Amino acid sequence: MGGDRMNIARTVMQRIDALAKISEDPNCLTRTFCSPAMRRANALVASWMREAGMIVRTDTIGNLIGHYPCKAESRNQKSKVLLFGSHLDTVRNAGKFDGPLGVFIAIACVQQLHETKTRLPFAIEVTGFADEEGVRYQSAYLGSRVLARTFDLKDLKRVDADGISMAKAIRGFGGNPRALASAKLDPKRLLGYVEVHIEQGPVLEKKNLSVGVVTAIAGQTRLCITFTGRAGHAGTTPMNLRRDALCAAAEFVLEVERFARGRPAAETGLVATVGQISALPDTSNVIPGEVVVSLDIRHAKDSVRERGVAALRKRAVQIGRRRNIKVSIGLVQQSASVSCDRNLSNLLAKSIRRYQKEAPLLASGAGHDAVAMAVITAVAMLFVRCKGGISHHPDESVRLQDVRMAVSVTTDLIQRLASEFS
Amino acid sequence: MGGDRMNIARTVMQRIDALAKISEDPNCLTRTFCSPAMRRANALVASWMREAGMIVRTDTIGNLIGHYPCKAESRNQKSKVLLFGSHLDTVRNAGKFDGPLGVFIAIACVQQLHETKTRLPFAIEVTGFADEEGVRYQSAYLGSRVLARTFDLKDLKRVDADGISMAKAIRGFGGNPRALASAKLDPKRLLGYVEVHIEQGPVLEKKNLSVGVVTAIAGQTRLCITFTGRAGHAGTTPMNLRRDALCAAAEFVLEVERFARGRPAAETGLVATVGQISALPDTSNVIPGEVVVSLDIRHAKDSVRERGVAALRKRAVQIGRRRNIKVSIGLVQQSASVSCDRNLSNLLAKSIRRYQKEAPLLASGAGHDAVAMAVITAVAMLFVRCKGGISHHPDESVRLQDVRMAVSVTTDLIQRLASEFS
Repeated sequence: MGGDRMNIARTVMQRIDALAKISEDPNCLTRTFCSPAMRRANALVASWMREAGMIVRTDTIGNLIGHYPCKAESRNQKSKVLLFGSHLDTVRNAGKFDGPLGVFIAIACVQQLHETKTRLPFAIEVTGFADEEGVRYQSAYLGSRVLARTFDLKDLKRVDADGISMAKAIRGFGGNPRALASAKLDPKRLLGYVEVHIEQGPVLEKKNLSVGVVTAIAGQTRLCITFTGRAGHAGTTPMNLRRDALCAAAEFVLEVERFARGRPAAETGLVATVGQISALPDTSNVIPGEVVVSLDIRHAKDSVRERGVAALRKRAVQIGRRRNIKVSIGLVQQSASVSCDRNLSNLLAKSIRRYQKEAPLLASGAGHDAVAMAVITAVAMLFVRCKGGISHHPDESVRLQDVRMAVSVTTDLIQRLASEFS
Repeated sequence: MGGDRMNIARTVMQRIDALAKISEDPNCLTRTFCSPAMRRANALVASWMREAGMIVRTDTIGNLIGHYPCKAESRNQKSKVLLFGSHLDTVRNAGKFDGPLGVFIAIACVQQLHETKTRLPFAIEVTGFADEEGVRYQSAYLGSRVLARTFDLKDLKRVDADGISMAKAIRGFGGNPRALASAKLDPKRLLGYVEVHIEQGPVLEKKNLSVGVVTAIAGQTRLCITFTGRAGHAGTTPMNLRRDALCAAAEFVLEVERFARGRPAAETGLVATVGQISALPDTSNVIPGEVVVSLDIRHAKDSVRERGVAALRKRAVQIGRRRNIKVSIGLVQQSASVSCDRNLSNLLAKSIRRYQKEAPLLASGAGHDAVAMAVITAVAMLFVRCKGGISHHPDESVRLQDVRMAVSVTTDLIQRLASEFS
């Protein structure tokens, strides 16, 4: 079995490499919603699904869905379904693993069932979502939101960089924007949704572990903070008469870091980042009169994140008051956290502990299709170690042994669910 | 005499306003080297010089020079000369006072001599320099460097935004680029150079004083400092595993401020500014991997500035080492300070104390024509209060009473020099 799993992992890796060759950009990996590259990708992945004994369909938004029937499935009987999935689209200049890894590990698990002629008391559906990254229409989770019935029909009017509406893109891909409702899943039939994904962070690497179980997908608040002081000549304005907006912003940047690093145990995992900064007039011999920074703050518990936002807003205002700098704070974006299902995650943790000394609990700081799927069913996520935590970059890298581990764990989870099902 | 001085100050103000109407841009005040606006400006100022009894010439670079002969001057006799001057060119979208104020106060002083038929034991020359700001050819002090013999002939090949070489511009203005040497002054004949200028800073306003004496024009060091950490996902990278380049840069910005504010009495006046900052990739959900900042540091004493530069370089390296951030430091520009002449400045301080309770000593953080003139003669500078320290901006503003004070002080200085001369 160990040797088999290694061969299966090798197949997953070969498929990762083969799919990575399908790009709309000859110089790098880019595969966006409803693109010709996406069509070729779906065709290739569909062939692997069929090889694994699945019945394959493409739904009206372009999701590729492989169906592995249950033990006694008939046309009339509505079997229960265990969903697996991740996305087949990518960011621009992407890595190979973000998305496809989850789809291919699920296909590999089904292939084992197929090869051993194993039928389960429930069906398995593996979905390659048509859009998770949102590159083409700046609106993420298009694929999973259609299945979860939370797709906003207004989004059909969005246009891409070439002026092509989403409705037109869907029609061009062979779908029917008027029939999106037909793709929605029936929550009553669903056992749950399981997504395998690279961690996109360095925790597993630091812990020297292959996989971990995700407890929640963090909620996020994005603020835009403007510090307004007074510009002045860098050579002629004495230090004590300055109202330097950059010094105030710098103090805030360090406060953000200090705050996030200093959280008590109950608030562990809070991350806060100033990723953008701009100074006006941005001239070496002029004291900055205005500085704008972004603040991104996330935590798996909404209350922890909200307290953090309130505290950092207050710090910004205090810094401004002390320095005679005007501070204005705008809310750019906010989303609540999504909890993974306790039962499904507990089962997943048991499967992990069968192969790994511990089952680390991780919060996902990035969003995933599981966020959209959680609206209609229980979700669980398995994170796989990736090199240096690097993602959204050609250097994205996953080790063969970790793929093998993910296949073993996912297979074990399916077996546990099957034995529980009755 | 008091009433006279107020009328003289009013005349200076009227001339400031009249000259401010001469611009190459109909929407704002802009007057650059060898422009048609400069020609009209020179013609108008020449008429005022003649009204003050001066013989007027335009030298080959376009400097306008008014000569007020001494008591017993003949064609053959080489009289001693006291120089006054400032510049008639402006930055783009300039204020009215930066430059012209110094020229017009000097003309006003000569006019008083002329009206009272007073001849001095030395000649006075008032120069309206053709280029100090360096807007057109990005090379400052063109006018004064010709007089001081430090003009670099290679600069003649510089081209402006329209591709016109400096040599061509000078010819078009009526000058002769091959004859620049003819404009140079004979240092042996010079008693010194006195420049009246707006402070361009807020110190006099804070002290509630009209004028001050400049001890030195600060030397300047400009560095470019790059902090290189590691970019990463803002949502998935735990705080303790980050190498955030912006946090390192922010710490440096605050160190710069703390260092400059905390100088001991002997190093008072050191100014240090981070005016530019840029972060890569500058995206709200990515930890900055690289941040570049500028550092501008100035002091009237080169040793103080040099120690400051060394200390701040060291701090940057220390911050980088502690945070595992690579720090690289580039020298962008460096210039030594220029000291004003002690004797001439002492006399100027005496003149100030005749009219004002104290004669504050100021360092100039900005450069002036006096920097170039100091190569060939003793220089002194009188700073005049300007509103809010604002300069290089249409809001530049000087009060009538301060112009009157500057006229009184400059007149007194001329009298003191005359009585000392023998």
